[in-house]
Amino acid sequence: MTERIDGHTILIGLMAYPIRHSMSPTMHNNAFAKLGLNYAYLAFDVTAEKLPAAIDALRTLEMRGTNISMPNKQRVIPLLDKLDPAAEMVGAVNTIVNDDGVLTGYTTDGIGFMKALDDEEIDIRGHKMTLAGAGGAGTAIAVQAALDGVSEISIFNLHDAEWDNAVRNVKLINDRTNCHATLHELENRNDFKAEIQDSFIYTDSTGVGMKPLEGQTLIDDPSWLRKDLVVFDTVYAPRTTKLMTVAQAAGVEHVFNGLGMMLEQGAAAFKLWTGKEMPVDYIHQILFDDDAANA
Amino acid sequence: MTERIDGHTILIGLMAYPIRHSMSPTMHNNAFAKLGLNYAYLAFDVTAEKLPAAIDALRTLEMRGTNISMPNKQRVIPLLDKLDPAAEMVGAVNTIVNDDGVLTGYTTDGIGFMKALDDEEIDIRGHKMTLAGAGGAGTAIAVQAALDGVSEISIFNLHDAEWDNAVRNVKLINDRTNCHATLHELENRNDFKAEIQDSFIYTDSTGVGMKPLEGQTLIDDPSWLRKDLVVFDTVYAPRTTKLMTVAQAAGVEHVFNGLGMMLEQGAAAFKLWTGKEMPVDYIHQILFDDDAANA
Repeated sequence: MTERIDGHTILIGLMAYPIRHSMSPTMHNNAFAKLGLNYAYLAFDVTAEKLPAAIDALRTLEMRGTNISMPNKQRVIPLLDKLDPAAEMVGAVNTIVNDDGVLTGYTTDGIGFMKALDDEEIDIRGHKMTLAGAGGAGTAIAVQAALDGVSEISIFNLHDAEWDNAVRNVKLINDRTNCHATLHELENRNDFKAEIQDSFIYTDSTGVGMKPLEGQTLIDDPSWLRKDLVVFDTVYAPRTTKLMTVAQAAGVEHVFNGLGMMLEQGAAAFKLWTGKEMPVDYIHQILFDDDAANA
Repeated sequence: MTERIDGHTILIGLMAYPIRHSMSPTMHNNAFAKLGLNYAYLAFDVTAEKLPAAIDALRTLEMRGTNISMPNKQRVIPLLDKLDPAAEMVGAVNTIVNDDGVLTGYTTDGIGFMKALDDEEIDIRGHKMTLAGAGGAGTAIAVQAALDGVSEISIFNLHDAEWDNAVRNVKLINDRTNCHATLHELENRNDFKAEIQDSFIYTDSTGVGMKPLEGQTLIDDPSWLRKDLVVFDTVYAPRTTKLMTVAQAAGVEHVFNGLGMMLEQGAAAFKLWTGKEMPVDYIHQILFDDDAANA
């Protein structure tokens, strides 16, 4: 079998630092190969300092686009020509599409969250969500959920350096969507418990439960979690976090890690670049089932 | 089988215009795959106007290097940090190596010519060559042959716009190597015939014999060609040029097209980037033997 890259292959990037251990190149290249699309997706070490030159490179080499990750998701915005409304509300970009020299910024993390729930036939529109974490992932989730019709979001965060940004985001959601968002201090355990108990879904976007906080959880009392609550942890390494163990102990039926969200945020970017649906089940197998992938 | 590109893959480019129909990406990517080297080689449409930005992009994205072709082989020189001696003499670069931000320009066309002859166990060192054509390929061949010990080169060209450049190149060869080079007018048929008859090898680098000059040749009289002359045509499409047909009719034993030179100039660049020998026979099979490649 010959290599699929030829003179017509179009480059797509991933610009972040550090980034060389990302699974995204494996994800996208296998999807391109499966569908016979002539793109190649490569990671580039791009520090904050190098970002403007890297965006110039994207334009010069006529790359179709790029993913953007830490530390560049916010600082890339002034370098773009257009911004998708969700990206503008979130104030961060993880995907850039280059349409004949016009660069548009998107955020697909929130789309990935909503799509992952859709894939499980769980519809949170019209319902209330309690969301732990107001960082990048949490903000993307809150904004997309609000845009998509979630009726109420109670956002919990430590009263730390991110607090002011969270205040801004909650105000934006209330100003621009029909969703009612409120900001709460994670330090207030009684409030936290009450909001969860009043919610359709509890989502943890804090990263507590993965390294270096593996084995930890914001909720260690199963009695906080109703059996019919949906519990969603954005962590996917490990596959089963401490929060998920607690939820399972509580008899919660719908407990999810972040694998579906990770795949679907990639699929959303893939669609923006190629216009095609990523073969998500196949990619899941390639990335997370070595035996099947090597068969 | 999963795609070989991952987050650690290093990019190598090909910067030229037009370039999308080049076989070089297929050549290099198959060689990387065969040897398990983690590089990807992609072509980029780079006009003369875009060249400085493209070299900036090479630096920013920490590409390992790039091939350079028309219209950029000469104009790229001021954008580099260092120049290999042969590239400096030829006044053109077809390969750039990026060593931690230091860009060195090389020319591998002449190396490819000499190596193609070595592969056929033909040693032209210490002998005389008559060379038709003083363009890019001809100059690269003349310079490398002179550097490698060919004793005498008679270069024939039309007295056209390239003439002054050819005068410069002949002077450089005489000044800097032990080879004696002379420049002759291709219009002088008697001189042309006499020099060929006095040579060990006759090389045609003019491109006469390929489109749009397919079926044409500078030499249509077999009596010009001794049986023990080596005849080398740099054209490889078609595989058998009119010159080669004439040489075969003359009973010449050693008649070559440009296929070996094309492969070996790529192999020389491959070695500069990776430190490894390109598996030339395998690549020959991939590029030029569809049945074997698909087996």
